Amino acid sequence: MPYIAPLNNLIENLRALPGIGAKTAARLAYHILDMDKEKATALAAAIIAAKEKIGYCKVCFNLSDQDPCQICAATGRDRSVICVVEQPQDVAAMERMRDFNGLYHVLHGSLSPLEGIGPEDLRIKELLERLAGEEVKEVIMATNPNVEGEATAMYLARLIKPLGVKVTRIAHGLPIGGDLEYADEVTLSKAMENRREI
Amino acid sequence: MPYIAPLNNLIENLRALPGIGAKTAARLAYHILDMDKEKATALAAAIIAAKEKIGYCKVCFNLSDQDPCQICAATGRDRSVICVVEQPQDVAAMERMRDFNGLYHVLHGSLSPLEGIGPEDLRIKELLERLAGEEVKEVIMATNPNVEGEATAMYLARLIKPLGVKVTRIAHGLPIGGDLEYADEVTLSKAMENRREI
Repeated sequence: MPYIAPLNNLIENLRALPGIGAKTAARLAYHILDMDKEKATALAAAIIAAKEKIGYCKVCFNLSDQDPCQICAATGRDRSVICVVEQPQDVAAMERMRDFNGLYHVLHGSLSPLEGIGPEDLRIKELLERLAGEEVKEVIMATNPNVEGEATAMYLARLIKPLGVKVTRIAHGLPIGGDLEYADEVTLSKAMENRREI
Repeated sequence: MPYIAPLNNLIENLRALPGIGAKTAARLAYHILDMDKEKATALAAAIIAAKEKIGYCKVCFNLSDQDPCQICAATGRDRSVICVVEQPQDVAAMERMRDFNGLYHVLHGSLSPLEGIGPEDLRIKELLERLAGEEVKEVIMATNPNVEGEATAMYLARLIKPLGVKVTRIAHGLPIGGDLEYADEVTLSKAMENRREI
């Protein structure tokens, strides 16, 4: 161990973060030692504050510093549409789009028999409870466009349709700004299948 | 701002770190929110502890949690040889090699007229003071093998030779334009072995 103890400890803690290897951790640690003390303290305080202040909204299970969260509590949003996503990150991506004005439901994962993740590991029961009233008219499945995300969307559609609620799936196709030449076959096939008249 | 305030604050603080862009910062922040509370607290505490406990050794100016540092205070080291490096990271790299048993001196930079870094911005005066006694027989220039590092080594050699101290330069086993901090142990060991008087 060529580092002094407090530096070594910092490096070890940084290495626990995703995508941070030994060298990046050392580089970050030396940078932190080189920072103004106020900035380093602010970083440490931000970590503590985020952990202490942020929990899950008990309605939609998005990350929130209030309960219900800002989106669930908002009066100006369309409460008849719920967009179902896998992770809180996905809510942030949808909100960046600024196009959707309904509510969300965060599953916290997708069905994956291989990883042993079944329906009881996701916030599915809570979603069905939200649909028990008359208010929700449509549920949009915005799970990831991969095997697990598709399976989760299909599974939920089968559960929700009998409740008389419309279930839709976000479209698959070519990403805007992408190159047809470099699109993978499955995406291209989906894009052809979902073509519409212009 | 699609994020809630404490999350946004954490992301902004992480973005201030080198090599961390907006997306990496968001990924790290979500990971931190997902961590055990003890681990997140340990990370924050490690940042604070590193900043509070680590300062510079007043002899060699390496980072240290004691003064003089562990290396300067060690009784088993050869006090007749001083290895001059640019950064504390370089001391860590040399110590990983386990081949060198002398002392160090950290300049905290290299001469760079373009960036306005002159001799007075480096710990050169302090190095010369260390050479005033009779004890030091050799100074090894282990500055980086790039233009600034070479210039710094030459400049110091001209200052030190008149004091009757042997001045050597680590060999160009190191790739030119590289960083001493990231050199592998064997290359570094060869470079030390092939040092010659300048």
